[in-house]
Amino acid sequence: MIKLLWKKGLQFIAKDNKDHEIVVDTDITTGGFEQGFAPMDLVLVALAGCMSMDIVAILGKKGGKITNFTAELEGNRSENHPKKYNKIIMKFQCEGEYKKKDLLRAFELSRDKYCSVSATLRDSPEIEYII
Amino acid sequence: MIKLLWKKGLQFIAKDNKDHEIVVDTDITTGGFEQGFAPMDLVLVALAGCMSMDIVAILGKKGGKITNFTAELEGNRSENHPKKYNKIIMKFQCEGEYKKKDLLRAFELSRDKYCSVSATLRDSPEIEYII
Repeated sequence: MIKLLWKKGLQFIAKDNKDHEIVVDTDITTGGFEQGFAPMDLVLVALAGCMSMDIVAILGKKGGKITNFTAELEGNRSENHPKKYNKIIMKFQCEGEYKKKDLLRAFELSRDKYCSVSATLRDSPEIEYII
Repeated sequence: MIKLLWKKGLQFIAKDNKDHEIVVDTDITTGGFEQGFAPMDLVLVALAGCMSMDIVAILGKKGGKITNFTAELEGNRSENHPKKYNKIIMKFQCEGEYKKKDLLRAFELSRDKYCSVSATLRDSPEIEYII
């Protein structure tokens, strides 16, 4: 379970079931304090984290040795409300000793088979609200 | 732009364009260190943050005074890969001085008009990969 607790203005604290905490915040002009990640940025972090974990794990199982791995994500949003992501661009960079074909295969397996966040974005979940 | 940097095992550091940082991690049994939020939990945090900001902001504009606001989220995942969310259950609790109908209207406006994260989940973005 995830809990989100209001702190001040439009700033919140999120907690997971192991009591990790992160600040969720927004621009000062919108009523936030700019002291933490914005919700739409967290969508990109979730996607980046899920695919990167898959790729690093699969490449490791294929004998690859990674010394550096980064993912950079940009999202293009609608101009009008709701300002959803129309397109997300993900760029991976991987340094170390590995076969290029193994990296590509690890990426494909994540994209097509394993990445839960990609699949959730691709195939919308039902949402039930209690208020 | 969001950057994700590999740290160790399946643990990563995410940075936003204001240099906020969060740890993205997974279970020790999976190869992580359990020192930060898991990617699928971050999907719930993003959704909770987006809707909660909308509701708190709209309720404030309607003259409501909030003393406490929490959102609790549970996600039901598929048993097989990719273990996506089939259903998400969100429960909001709001304490303070406000009209119940204003809270419900704020919630509806977020769900149907303003919440960018809900809309992204509802209407899948295109994803372009560079590897």
